Amino acid sequence: MINQEFKAMLQGKSVIRELSEYATARGQEIGYENVFDYSLGNPSVPCPEGFTQSVIDIYKEMDPMDIHGYSPSLGNTKAREYLAGELRERFNIPYETKHIFMTSGAASSLAHAFRLVTKPGDEIIGFAPFFPEYIPYIKATGAKFTIIPANTADFQIKFDEFEKALNPNVQAILINSPNNPSGVVYSEETLRKLASILEAKQKEYNHEIFIISDEPYREIAFDGKKTPYPSHYYDNTISCYSYSKGMSLPGERIGYMAFNPKCVDADINAIICGQISRGIGHNCPSATQQLAITRTGFKLADLSVYETNANIIYNELVDLGFEVVKPQGTFYIFPKALEESSIDFCNKAKEYDLLLVPGDTFGCPGYFRMAYCIDTEKVKRSMPVLRKFVEECYR
Amino acid sequence: MINQEFKAMLQGKSVIRELSEYATARGQEIGYENVFDYSLGNPSVPCPEGFTQSVIDIYKEMDPMDIHGYSPSLGNTKAREYLAGELRERFNIPYETKHIFMTSGAASSLAHAFRLVTKPGDEIIGFAPFFPEYIPYIKATGAKFTIIPANTADFQIKFDEFEKALNPNVQAILINSPNNPSGVVYSEETLRKLASILEAKQKEYNHEIFIISDEPYREIAFDGKKTPYPSHYYDNTISCYSYSKGMSLPGERIGYMAFNPKCVDADINAIICGQISRGIGHNCPSATQQLAITRTGFKLADLSVYETNANIIYNELVDLGFEVVKPQGTFYIFPKALEESSIDFCNKAKEYDLLLVPGDTFGCPGYFRMAYCIDTEKVKRSMPVLRKFVEECYR
Repeated sequence: MINQEFKAMLQGKSVIRELSEYATARGQEIGYENVFDYSLGNPSVPCPEGFTQSVIDIYKEMDPMDIHGYSPSLGNTKAREYLAGELRERFNIPYETKHIFMTSGAASSLAHAFRLVTKPGDEIIGFAPFFPEYIPYIKATGAKFTIIPANTADFQIKFDEFEKALNPNVQAILINSPNNPSGVVYSEETLRKLASILEAKQKEYNHEIFIISDEPYREIAFDGKKTPYPSHYYDNTISCYSYSKGMSLPGERIGYMAFNPKCVDADINAIICGQISRGIGHNCPSATQQLAITRTGFKLADLSVYETNANIIYNELVDLGFEVVKPQGTFYIFPKALEESSIDFCNKAKEYDLLLVPGDTFGCPGYFRMAYCIDTEKVKRSMPVLRKFVEECYR
Repeated sequence: MINQEFKAMLQGKSVIRELSEYATARGQEIGYENVFDYSLGNPSVPCPEGFTQSVIDIYKEMDPMDIHGYSPSLGNTKAREYLAGELRERFNIPYETKHIFMTSGAASSLAHAFRLVTKPGDEIIGFAPFFPEYIPYIKATGAKFTIIPANTADFQIKFDEFEKALNPNVQAILINSPNNPSGVVYSEETLRKLASILEAKQKEYNHEIFIISDEPYREIAFDGKKTPYPSHYYDNTISCYSYSKGMSLPGERIGYMAFNPKCVDADINAIICGQISRGIGHNCPSATQQLAITRTGFKLADLSVYETNANIIYNELVDLGFEVVKPQGTFYIFPKALEESSIDFCNKAKEYDLLLVPGDTFGCPGYFRMAYCIDTEKVKRSMPVLRKFVEECYR
């Protein structure tokens, strides 16, 4: 018999996906150039040219048997060696090959991380606003997901609420900086305070508490700043990376986990992840993609458009009187809606073909997300529409 | 705290993987050409040239944004359309796009299939000898895996034992034809009888029982025969395919599930699988690989070497007095050992640098597997070694 629990999930359609489907349908009516679709977080810049050339070179030069064979269960050894070296150099942390586990992107990194450090019934704490897929990701592991309400002043952490929520059942803290949907980067101060609380609690509870750091937006930081790297502040950190955003390869499903060399069981965590893979149908990312990222080295897509768009939208929102925290990275901004219900607010905007996602989806009602991974020209054209919407509906 | 259940799995190393690691180490001592490594089922022929060219063309001609964007959650729509058409034509079953779900190879196909048709506590029946990874695959879903002992006469199904094992808790039957490790293809007679029993039991129990058909070896059939396609015999069949063997792309992690258009919930099973993906970190196979198999169309690697090797080994085994069923496909043969313990038998063979896998691993003690996906030249050189081993140890 078909599993009724999964079947029932068909009723709970993703708000983001529904909006995106509406955008496509509306685009067929009025021309997609006239739909100001801020719904989806799909990169809008091509991957680096060096990546494309790497794949062509691999297919022209290498023996197909050497390209397409099974990867070892922890991933292509050369890719893991290369990544340990890249991260060693960039972050000055002594990663070795054994600390790297290749994954099929962020979803796969997280699927392994949750299972590695929790068992069914354990608790994971996260912070609003958060990527909504965390809920089904964690639910399937049998762990409980506790969400700390948003600190809407600056979208750092509400430490008082966090400390209240901590209890011996908590085995992991899930963070995401730069953050989807707020665009905010956790400051060094935030990471230091988080680390110090967790260190004390580890002693008190007499077990480890891991930070699972979801870092697909790590390289998209504005104002020439670098994202503080969580593993610098706390030993029991698992960095979960994906090439989807920084290199614009979301469809390729390639990423990795990097275990802090000082974390508990650092020498064997990647090997345990290889065992976890067996139960969830994972068997390494595409061999081609592992070779390609190794050959390409550390190159990024031209990410500057995201900062350009962020500035245009932020300035306009401020000018229109919105309460909004300036994004420090990603391609999202998360302003406060102009009425209590952000669902009503977004529905009204939809009448102007402005597609905004209500904050409820991200555990933060009353706010809304704009994903500005779209052409700057379109962003510019949408600003008068935003102004018109605000003036007609809220003045 | 690190999950102790997964950590404990590190103790139970795969016999096949250990043998394969031994082969590598031994090869460094005496030269790999002198190690007769029949341990691993890794294809030994290159992928079709048309596949390599397809990837180069895609990267040269297409906009990177069109190559690398997120796939819809059920897979690239053009790939699904193409596959529905390919299967319609090849098998004369009216598949439509909605009946195809793209997966990251066989492990991923099975991870979705088990979760789709069972819930924790349900029962899945399989048949010895079987691919040993089925055990961890199913264990992680919470379902129970019941194994029917091997019919060593011809490695078809022991129907008397199967009928005794059936009960209302059984929701799925897992089959694998052509079979790893026996090399046997389920006959039309076997599939008809299986279908007829299941149809009666579905009525008796008043719920569906699905056949989950693991078909990575579908295209590797000998004597110019075609593998009987299970979906022809039973409506509630889910075909799980992988491009690993027939196209020699094991590292690329690409495959699909095809739902018989007459199966229960045929219109929505692929959509439900999209929901299952969210809990196991799956998010489609590599976008490049989906485009590549679509562009390449139905082409196979040159699979003839497997049949050549099968004949050489089979004839030699028969000549040496082994009890052995002639392989009808795959790149495996599964003879009876010359002593009761196939572990002892294989350990003795190891002294001759003949690496054979004991049948215990496949749920069939007393037999052993040879994976002959190696060069024919090496197969030929290994035959006198096999003869020497048998004559010195068993005559």
